[in-house]
Amino acid sequence: MSKRIKKIGSAPGTVIFTGDKKVEKVLIHYMQYDFKTLTEKVFDNHTEITFDKSSDKNVDWYDVRGIHDTKLIEYFGENFDIHKLVLEAIADIHQRPRFDEYDKGNFILLRSLGFDKAKLEVTREHVAIYFNQGFIATFQETESDLFETVRTRINSGKGRIRSRGTDYLAYAIIDSIVDNYYITMESIEDVIEELDEQVTLNQNFSGKTKIHNLKKELLVLRKSIAPLREAIARFSKSDSSFVKEENRIFIRDLYGNTIQIMDTVESYRDMLNGLQDLFITEVSFKMNKVMQLLTLISVIFIPLTFLAGLYGMNFEYIPELKYENAYFILLGIMFIIAMIMVVYFKRKKWF
Amino acid sequence: MSKRIKKIGSAPGTVIFTGDKKVEKVLIHYMQYDFKTLTEKVFDNHTEITFDKSSDKNVDWYDVRGIHDTKLIEYFGENFDIHKLVLEAIADIHQRPRFDEYDKGNFILLRSLGFDKAKLEVTREHVAIYFNQGFIATFQETESDLFETVRTRINSGKGRIRSRGTDYLAYAIIDSIVDNYYITMESIEDVIEELDEQVTLNQNFSGKTKIHNLKKELLVLRKSIAPLREAIARFSKSDSSFVKEENRIFIRDLYGNTIQIMDTVESYRDMLNGLQDLFITEVSFKMNKVMQLLTLISVIFIPLTFLAGLYGMNFEYIPELKYENAYFILLGIMFIIAMIMVVYFKRKKWF
Amino acid sequence: MSKRIKKIGSAPGTVIFTGDKKVEKVLIHYMQYDFKTLTEKVFDNHTEITFDKSSDKNVDWYDVRGIHDTKLIEYFGENFDIHKLVLEAIADIHQRPRFDEYDKGNFILLRSLGFDKAKLEVTREHVAIYFNQGFIATFQETESDLFETVRTRINSGKGRIRSRGTDYLAYAIIDSIVDNYYITMESIEDVIEELDEQVTLNQNFSGKTKIHNLKKELLVLRKSIAPLREAIARFSKSDSSFVKEENRIFIRDLYGNTIQIMDTVESYRDMLNGLQDLFITEVSFKMNKVMQLLTLISVIFIPLTFLAGLYGMNFEYIPELKYENAYFILLGIMFIIAMIMVVYFKRKKWF
Amino acid sequence: MSKRIKKIGSAPGTVIFTGDKKVEKVLIHYMQYDFKTLTEKVFDNHTEITFDKSSDKNVDWYDVRGIHDTKLIEYFGENFDIHKLVLEAIADIHQRPRFDEYDKGNFILLRSLGFDKAKLEVTREHVAIYFNQGFIATFQETESDLFETVRTRINSGKGRIRSRGTDYLAYAIIDSIVDNYYITMESIEDVIEELDEQVTLNQNFSGKTKIHNLKKELLVLRKSIAPLREAIARFSKSDSSFVKEENRIFIRDLYGNTIQIMDTVESYRDMLNGLQDLFITEVSFKMNKVMQLLTLISVIFIPLTFLAGLYGMNFEYIPELKYENAYFILLGIMFIIAMIMVVYFKRKKWF
Amino acid sequence: MSKRIKKIGSAPGTVIFTGDKKVEKVLIHYMQYDFKTLTEKVFDNHTEITFDKSSDKNVDWYDVRGIHDTKLIEYFGENFDIHKLVLEAIADIHQRPRFDEYDKGNFILLRSLGFDKAKLEVTREHVAIYFNQGFIATFQETESDLFETVRTRINSGKGRIRSRGTDYLAYAIIDSIVDNYYITMESIEDVIEELDEQVTLNQNFSGKTKIHNLKKELLVLRKSIAPLREAIARFSKSDSSFVKEENRIFIRDLYGNTIQIMDTVESYRDMLNGLQDLFITEVSFKMNKVMQLLTLISVIFIPLTFLAGLYGMNFEYIPELKYENAYFILLGIMFIIAMIMVVYFKRKKWF
Repeated sequence: MSKRIKKIGSAPGTVIFTGDKKVEKVLIHYMQYDFKTLTEKVFDNHTEITFDKSSDKNVDWYDVRGIHDTKLIEYFGENFDIHKLVLEAIADIHQRPRFDEYDKGNFILLRSLGFDKAKLEVTREHVAIYFNQGFIATFQETESDLFETVRTRINSGKGRIRSRGTDYLAYAIIDSIVDNYYITMESIEDVIEELDEQVTLNQNFSGKTKIHNLKKELLVLRKSIAPLREAIARFSKSDSSFVKEENRIFIRDLYGNTIQIMDTVESYRDMLNGLQDLFITEVSFKMNKVMQLLTLISVIFIPLTFLAGLYGMNFEYIPELKYENAYFILLGIMFIIAMIMVVYFKRKKWF
Repeated sequence: MSKRIKKIGSAPGTVIFTGDKKVEKVLIHYMQYDFKTLTEKVFDNHTEITFDKSSDKNVDWYDVRGIHDTKLIEYFGENFDIHKLVLEAIADIHQRPRFDEYDKGNFILLRSLGFDKAKLEVTREHVAIYFNQGFIATFQETESDLFETVRTRINSGKGRIRSRGTDYLAYAIIDSIVDNYYITMESIEDVIEELDEQVTLNQNFSGKTKIHNLKKELLVLRKSIAPLREAIARFSKSDSSFVKEENRIFIRDLYGNTIQIMDTVESYRDMLNGLQDLFITEVSFKMNKVMQLLTLISVIFIPLTFLAGLYGMNFEYIPELKYENAYFILLGIMFIIAMIMVVYFKRKKWF
Repeated sequence: MSKRIKKIGSAPGTVIFTGDKKVEKVLIHYMQYDFKTLTEKVFDNHTEITFDKSSDKNVDWYDVRGIHDTKLIEYFGENFDIHKLVLEAIADIHQRPRFDEYDKGNFILLRSLGFDKAKLEVTREHVAIYFNQGFIATFQETESDLFETVRTRINSGKGRIRSRGTDYLAYAIIDSIVDNYYITMESIEDVIEELDEQVTLNQNFSGKTKIHNLKKELLVLRKSIAPLREAIARFSKSDSSFVKEENRIFIRDLYGNTIQIMDTVESYRDMLNGLQDLFITEVSFKMNKVMQLLTLISVIFIPLTFLAGLYGMNFEYIPELKYENAYFILLGIMFIIAMIMVVYFKRKKWF
Repeated sequence: MSKRIKKIGSAPGTVIFTGDKKVEKVLIHYMQYDFKTLTEKVFDNHTEITFDKSSDKNVDWYDVRGIHDTKLIEYFGENFDIHKLVLEAIADIHQRPRFDEYDKGNFILLRSLGFDKAKLEVTREHVAIYFNQGFIATFQETESDLFETVRTRINSGKGRIRSRGTDYLAYAIIDSIVDNYYITMESIEDVIEELDEQVTLNQNFSGKTKIHNLKKELLVLRKSIAPLREAIARFSKSDSSFVKEENRIFIRDLYGNTIQIMDTVESYRDMLNGLQDLFITEVSFKMNKVMQLLTLISVIFIPLTFLAGLYGMNFEYIPELKYENAYFILLGIMFIIAMIMVVYFKRKKWF
Repeated sequence: MSKRIKKIGSAPGTVIFTGDKKVEKVLIHYMQYDFKTLTEKVFDNHTEITFDKSSDKNVDWYDVRGIHDTKLIEYFGENFDIHKLVLEAIADIHQRPRFDEYDKGNFILLRSLGFDKAKLEVTREHVAIYFNQGFIATFQETESDLFETVRTRINSGKGRIRSRGTDYLAYAIIDSIVDNYYITMESIEDVIEELDEQVTLNQNFSGKTKIHNLKKELLVLRKSIAPLREAIARFSKSDSSFVKEENRIFIRDLYGNTIQIMDTVESYRDMLNGLQDLFITEVSFKMNKVMQLLTLISVIFIPLTFLAGLYGMNFEYIPELKYENAYFILLGIMFIIAMIMVVYFKRKKWF
């Protein structure tokens, strides 16, 4: 959060990059398409960018990878008349997912999520989408192609995507990110199931720290997904002129997916809590078993050791010591005492 | 969830079967009826299907068993003008229960549930219902006849069902599935009561894993039932032209049932949590008892053993060793010490 | 729940008794009254019943005790034009409390509750009320006169009840049932207070099963009271023509009572949870005390016993054994060691 | 609750006193004032009361202390046309706080609260306020002057209170009661802080019962304050003709206070729960420490005692017994064994 | 809270300072600006203040540091026609954050927060803002310049702030306070991470009191932040004439920040709860380990010590004592017994 703090004191709408620089050079992938035509360009120098605002019929998609270049973001802002607060949010990776309607465009903030099974760590990448009639720009932190599947569909020229405008494209981009959440969820479920097995079979005692860490990571996930759910709900109900009626049913479908993922996060939390309770029970149960063995053996030997001590005393007059068979009689008595105790404990089902 | 993941990257509305194939051959049970007439056919080859769209007065019910044949689903889609997202949802067993209104028909997704008492496992089957004026199609994963009771009522020709149209039939089908939830609930209640008895009577210590697993299964149940409740609520309030006013009171009644089932799931969760707490208390209580016995016996014998050790020392001058009755006096003293401790512990109610 | 299951497969609106038969013979207590006149009859054979539908000015109250006779219920249904779903609900004791408006009458389902202090068990009886202009019918499982206080008020001829119609009578009946909830609550509170005392004073260790069972019974209560609260809320806001404006303030008052009872149930739950936590703490606290005593005595005697053992060894050359006062010196040393430990433990406040 | 139960069976609106009589003689403090004039009288016999209904411009305040005299309450009811349900509520100390609008006046029920630090007990007194244009009556259980500060402000003749009518007076009365809640809260906070210190410093082990009892008392508080919050919310939004627009902002301010108090109650609950958890942790932590000492000392002496026992055996041929320095060598070995264990435990950080 | 209590009994709207005096002398920083001009003055004596109400076009900002001088607050009240309840709230540091609309101005109450890492203590300062067309006054407890960043932006003359009026300034002030919450949050997160590490690595056992105290401080934070969130929500939706449409989007952005901070507080609570659970598990886990070592060593030596005691008895006839190798045979048997036990425990994975 420390870069976030550098920002404090600056005026609202100041564009400050609050993350760590993850790419050397910003890369801008540009696509212009309508139902018939398709142009594709890649700029790796922002001075090269030419903004073609000739037609609202086309979709102009600027896919910006790397957000540390605040000049570039401001350059977009000036050319497309984007609100200052949007520009600020694009560069600020700590802002929470949301959907905002502005006079001149709609803005969506969300996070691409992943899960590193080895480190038990959620990875996240800040993604911003701004669109209005004919223009759409997406911003992400790294150069990995998050929207490859979307681009493939556009290139193939089949399907709805080429004929439905920027709002459908925005939907498709979010949909591809949310689809990836399912992979993240599955990875987490694998880890939970593994932990469950280890706890149930009592193989592995290092589970408790893992459960604890996984619960913390779920908190991180929840902070990314819960506000996205609200954002998509607002997107689906938006009466902005940039969201067409015919695409609304798709966004509603997407909303259903975010609910399902959020429910899954909650049920993972419940499962981990259950697992932790079980783990603690297992530990105290095992201790109980060991304690019972100690009890048994101690309690059996303590009176016998006392008896042995008794006849080890050096009093001059202890009559039993003189009897010839006293030793064997005492051994017999000791055996009987031990047996009585064993039988008593067995009956009490103490072992 | 792994098949779900194969789907990622495909365009919204792509029909991909995400489950495991559960029937060899898809079977389509077709019924056409109105108040007077009734026709019944079975197709086991989808090329045989003839779609009769002559009249909206009849009810045409296509009961499809087996959803792995995505061609067939698309074939339905084309012939009856069903939205792409509906077709996708029919084949995707991971989608959550919901009710959606489309321009040309209503769509309901739900799950048929069962409970395997031996494995303590909830079984579920994906069921999809699509209907509009005169046409209704249902889709399920296996060939088991889930709607037998509904079909029997249609065949008998008595009652409301023959005269009330597709919305009432859709209601009747959902009602028959929800009725089965009560059986599932009763099975779970049996298991909980059995566990309760075992924990209370302290007979069985394997209960904790069972409670843990049952709690996990209740999470699965909740994820199927909670969204269904919302779906039925939306169905009952639907102002779609395909839902007639006179049938609304039945759907509201059904809504009451889903609330009751959901409440039952929640109360089972509470009961299992209570049971788990009780179990842990029982374990620590039992350990306590055993510990107290150990304490008692140890604490009684420890000073006596010390005394015996004392007079087992080999000092040349220990005056007591010479007295003739010293041994018996010591035995008496030991007895008195033991008695004092027993009385003290009794008074303290420690055993 | 098993009788409930027999019902599965039957058409909605089929009248099936799902409880256990609790009376031999159905008894119908009939009252007809207006402000001036009062007629009272008892039928014990349903063929005797004559339905007098001459006037809407009178109140005609049929108080039916015993609901196993489904023919009788259907007979009412035909004569008074009652909806099939109402008839089904009258005979189905598993349905949850609710208020439903039908075109031709209003329907209220609720439960009369009791609490058996000895068995720690909530008892419940299914009560159904159906009324429209001038006609009201009540149904209950047993022949006990649940509404005696209401009848007394009608007979006395004083007060509002004779002049206010069926909606006020329905209110008065529900009010008398809800009043009885207070008695149930008081019985439960007595038991909780008793348990609280036992746990606090540590007298009784059988408390934990009682707390567990009581918590389960509160779940049963909640499942009866929570939906009733919603039902009364809907009753109080009903714009049915059968509910007069002037009586609404009474129903709102009743609604306040159901909120209070529900709050009480919730606070009992909190109290029982608190009690359970306290109980567990008490148990571990007591164990702690006993453990500390063990620690103390063991730790004091262990080094002394070692010393005694040391001088019980049979080495030929142990110089101390020859000194005349060695025994007494050793005794002194032992005493000093014991005292040091006692003082140390006292200081550490370990006993 | 037992007097509450005596009421069961009586008609709604029957005035029955359900509390314990707390004053010998009912005392009625009467004030009549407008901006200029002020009359004050005290009646201690209800036949003396003269009801002056001449003017709506004045405020006529009847402050009734003692509510066991149901005749008096009914006398008020007849003279001022008060609804039967209001009269019932005035005498029934078990009713929950609420705000009700009637055609002819508004009614507020609340509780004056206190906290007895010594007994850790919340005390409460039932207060009822009924007002319409020009007339206001307040009812309380005891003769303590709850509204002294309000009366002082009226007498002083300064400020808003003399010119603002009955609704402002009702507000001022409730405000003075709610102000007292802050004192109650502060007393509870003192006790919690004291308990916190005791638990943290581990001085006092009787804390657990106190925490438990305090939690129960917070439940009592919550049941008084939560419904009052709702009542004040309704008061502030009331569109009754008896509540003037200009006074609404004061009632809204009061509403803010009830929210704050309710939040405080909730945070006290959280603090007590945290304290209880800490207490339990402390107990098990302390036990752990003691257990570790036992472990240490036992484990060090057990092998030494065994060695001593070994050379205390009476075998005829034990070669070591003959060596001259064997005793001292053994002592050295014992010392080395003890040291190794001490070092090992130190390294493991076990003490 | 004790000064709060002194207030009880005074009329609503009485200005009483309820905090501790934190500055010797009240200092008033005055700024008057519009887009072009800027005047700045500092008064340290309230008689010096001249209220310039000539123009609504300018922004007149009175930044008052020190609120113990109630005369000054009343002086403001009279000169700017501020409602009595606002004046009361300015001086009462115990009031919760809120937004209130009055006829003649809007009022916002909030708290500036800090976190002292060493003492683990949240510090807070009461801040009040009142504004209408052209006039804005801010009040704070200490003389620290909380709004320095805002003032810097005004002085620099760039940006929106000089041209947007009092509502934007109010927004900017709140924004600068909320920005500081992020620093507070980061400090807390640092402490939590440190605690997490200590608990996970098991280094430090003093963690439990820290976790407990930190949870209490989070309660304090929540009581400041949760109502602020509601207040900002109301501010953003205000239809007051003093809040301009064009500034609303900034306030909505600010609302997003308060949600995020509140979510962060909640997730910290969850993390601390998780940490506490982990800590307790760790403690019982460690105790378990130590207990197991005790068990092991005790259970191995107890039978050996018994055997040694057996042959230390002084019976005249114990045949084994005469055999020459008996001693060595016994040693061998003892070794074998010990080994068997060690192997058994190893196999059971008890150490």
